[in-house]
Amino acid sequence: MEEKPKFAVIGGGSWATAIAKMLCENQSEIAWYMRSTYAVEHLKHQKHNPNYLSSVEFDIKQLHLTNDINEAVKFADYIIFAIPSAFLNGELEKLTESLDDKVIFSAIKGIVPETSLIVGQHFHDHYNIPYENIGVITGPCHAEEVALERLSYLTIACGDLKKAKIMAKNLSSNYITAKTSDDIVGTEYAAMLKNIYAIAAGIAHGLGYGDNFQSVLMSNAIREMKKFIRKVHKMKRNINNSAYLGDLLVTGYSVFSRNRMFGNMIGKGYTVKSAQMEMSMVAEGYYATKSAYLLNQKYGAKTPIIDAVYSILYENKDPKTVFKKLTEKLD
Amino acid sequence: MEEKPKFAVIGGGSWATAIAKMLCENQSEIAWYMRSTYAVEHLKHQKHNPNYLSSVEFDIKQLHLTNDINEAVKFADYIIFAIPSAFLNGELEKLTESLDDKVIFSAIKGIVPETSLIVGQHFHDHYNIPYENIGVITGPCHAEEVALERLSYLTIACGDLKKAKIMAKNLSSNYITAKTSDDIVGTEYAAMLKNIYAIAAGIAHGLGYGDNFQSVLMSNAIREMKKFIRKVHKMKRNINNSAYLGDLLVTGYSVFSRNRMFGNMIGKGYTVKSAQMEMSMVAEGYYATKSAYLLNQKYGAKTPIIDAVYSILYENKDPKTVFKKLTEKLD
Repeated sequence: MEEKPKFAVIGGGSWATAIAKMLCENQSEIAWYMRSTYAVEHLKHQKHNPNYLSSVEFDIKQLHLTNDINEAVKFADYIIFAIPSAFLNGELEKLTESLDDKVIFSAIKGIVPETSLIVGQHFHDHYNIPYENIGVITGPCHAEEVALERLSYLTIACGDLKKAKIMAKNLSSNYITAKTSDDIVGTEYAAMLKNIYAIAAGIAHGLGYGDNFQSVLMSNAIREMKKFIRKVHKMKRNINNSAYLGDLLVTGYSVFSRNRMFGNMIGKGYTVKSAQMEMSMVAEGYYATKSAYLLNQKYGAKTPIIDAVYSILYENKDPKTVFKKLTEKLD
Repeated sequence: MEEKPKFAVIGGGSWATAIAKMLCENQSEIAWYMRSTYAVEHLKHQKHNPNYLSSVEFDIKQLHLTNDINEAVKFADYIIFAIPSAFLNGELEKLTESLDDKVIFSAIKGIVPETSLIVGQHFHDHYNIPYENIGVITGPCHAEEVALERLSYLTIACGDLKKAKIMAKNLSSNYITAKTSDDIVGTEYAAMLKNIYAIAAGIAHGLGYGDNFQSVLMSNAIREMKKFIRKVHKMKRNINNSAYLGDLLVTGYSVFSRNRMFGNMIGKGYTVKSAQMEMSMVAEGYYATKSAYLLNQKYGAKTPIIDAVYSILYENKDPKTVFKKLTEKLD
C-alpha cells in the first residue's frame, strides 16, 4: 500500500456525501462512485449532490466521479461503503476488480439481508477479506450536521489499529474529531441495533408515550444493547462511549431519524407496508430487527425491546398491546 | 408507626403537586403544606394549584391543606420534601414538631446551599435522622407528564428497603411505575449532578453546537457521573439504570428543563445575573455546580464537564473558549 493511501466512497446518499466532504478536507483527490448517472452529471456541473446535502459545495477537481464501481475500487487503497445494506450485495456483484489488499471500511449501519451478517463479517466470510483490512466508521453523526460543519465525533474501528488511525486522520478536520477503537464487531452491532431502538422510540411516540417513558426506554435499550453485544463478541468495552451510547442517543432522540419516523408511523397505526410506501424507502432498522431477533435465537440474550419490535413488524402484533406488555418488563 | 402510614407533601411547586396527585391515587387523605396562603385558598375553592400543573383537579376531601409546616409534619408518618433546595433550611427553621420517628423522603434535586450537603445527608447530619428513615424519590419524571397521566417510572431509595417499598406502593398507579433501590446516596447525587449536565447541554446549544455534539456530551456526562458518584459512595450500581442515565436524559434532552434553559441563555451570552433575572428564578443546577465542584476538590474525580460549567458560572470565563477546550477533552 502507498505511503499516502487513496480513498474511494461508494454511495450517493447523505452519509456518503458527508464522508466525501470530510475526506476532501484532507485529500487532493478521492474517487466517488454513485449508481445514478444523473447525480454524477449534476455534481460535475453544479458542484453539489442533487439529492442529498445539496448545500455542500464540492471542488470538482478533488472528485474522481464515476458510475463504475470498479473504477472507484481500482483508484483507491481504502474503500468506504456507505450505501443501504439492502443494496450492498447488488453492488458487489458488479465487481470485477479484486478486493485483495484493499482496506474495506463500512459506513453502513445495518445487516446484509441475504446473509444476515454485519457488513464486516459479510466481507470477511464472503470475500475473504482478513479482519486487519476491515473497518467500521461510526457516529454519533447526523450527516446533516456535517454539512453545517457542526462539531461531530466519529469512532473508527479496524482490526489493524494503524489503519484505523490512517482513516481517522483522513476524516478529521476542525469540525470532525475521530477516535479509534479495536472493537470492529461491537461498534458495528451497536450501529445496527440502535436503529431498532430508534424504531421502538418512534413506536412509543406514535402511541402517545412521553419524554419520561422515552428516557426509560433509552436507559433500558443501552443495557439491552450491552447484553446483546457481549453475547456476540465478548471483550472489554465501555458501552457508554460515544460509539455505542452516543450513537443510540443521536438516533433515538432525533425527530429526523428515518427509523424513528418509521416507528412513529407504526405506532400511529400504519401497517409496515403503508409506512414504507409513505416514506418511499425502507428504514435500515426494519431489516436489523429481523436479523437481530433471529441471531438472538442462538445467543439467548434478554432483549425485550427487540422482541417487541419484531413481533410488531414481523408477526403483525398490535403495537399498543405489545408496548403495554413491554412497559412491564422495563425498569 | 401506623400499619397504614400517613403522608405529607411539603411544597407548592410542580413536582410537589405531581407527588400529591400520585399519593391521592392511593390515600384517602394526605397533608399538603405550602407557604402561599393564596395557593392554599385557591386550591380549596378551585380544586387546583393556581401556579403549577393547574390542569390537575384534586378531590379536596383528600387534602389536608395547610400553611403551617408543623401541622403537616404532625399529621404524617412519611414526609416528602419537594421544595427548591435553597428554601429548605428556611422551612426547617419553622419546625417545632419533632422529626423523630418520621420517615423523611427527599424529592429535592439539589444541594442545601448552607451546608453543601445533599438533602439526605443534611437531615442525617443536622437533624439526627437515621439513614433507615431517610429516602429519595427520583425520576426520570417531568411533573408535566404526571399531570397528563403519561406512563412514568420512579425510583424510590431508602436506607430501609421496607420503607422504600411502602413509599413506592403509595406513589404507584396505572401511570406510575415505582421501583426501589438501596442507593440513597447515589440516586440523590445523580439527581443533583444531572442538573449540571443539563446546564452544560444548554450552554452547548446556546453556543450553536448541534445534536451530534449533544449526544457526545451526554455520553461523556454519564461516564463522568459514574466516576463522581463512585468516589462519594462506592457500591455496586448500574449507572445505566433509569434513576441515573434515564434521569440525565430526560433533563438533558428536555427543552423545558429550567437548568437547560438557564444554560442556553448563558451560551447565548447572558450573564448569570441577567439569565436569573430573565427566568425570575434560580436553576437548581447553579448551586449544584458550585457544591459538586468544591466537593470534588476533596475527591479528585476527573470531571471536565462540571469544571467547565463551574468556570463559566463562577469564574466568569467565556463560554465559547471554555467549551472549545472542553470539546478536546471529550471523546
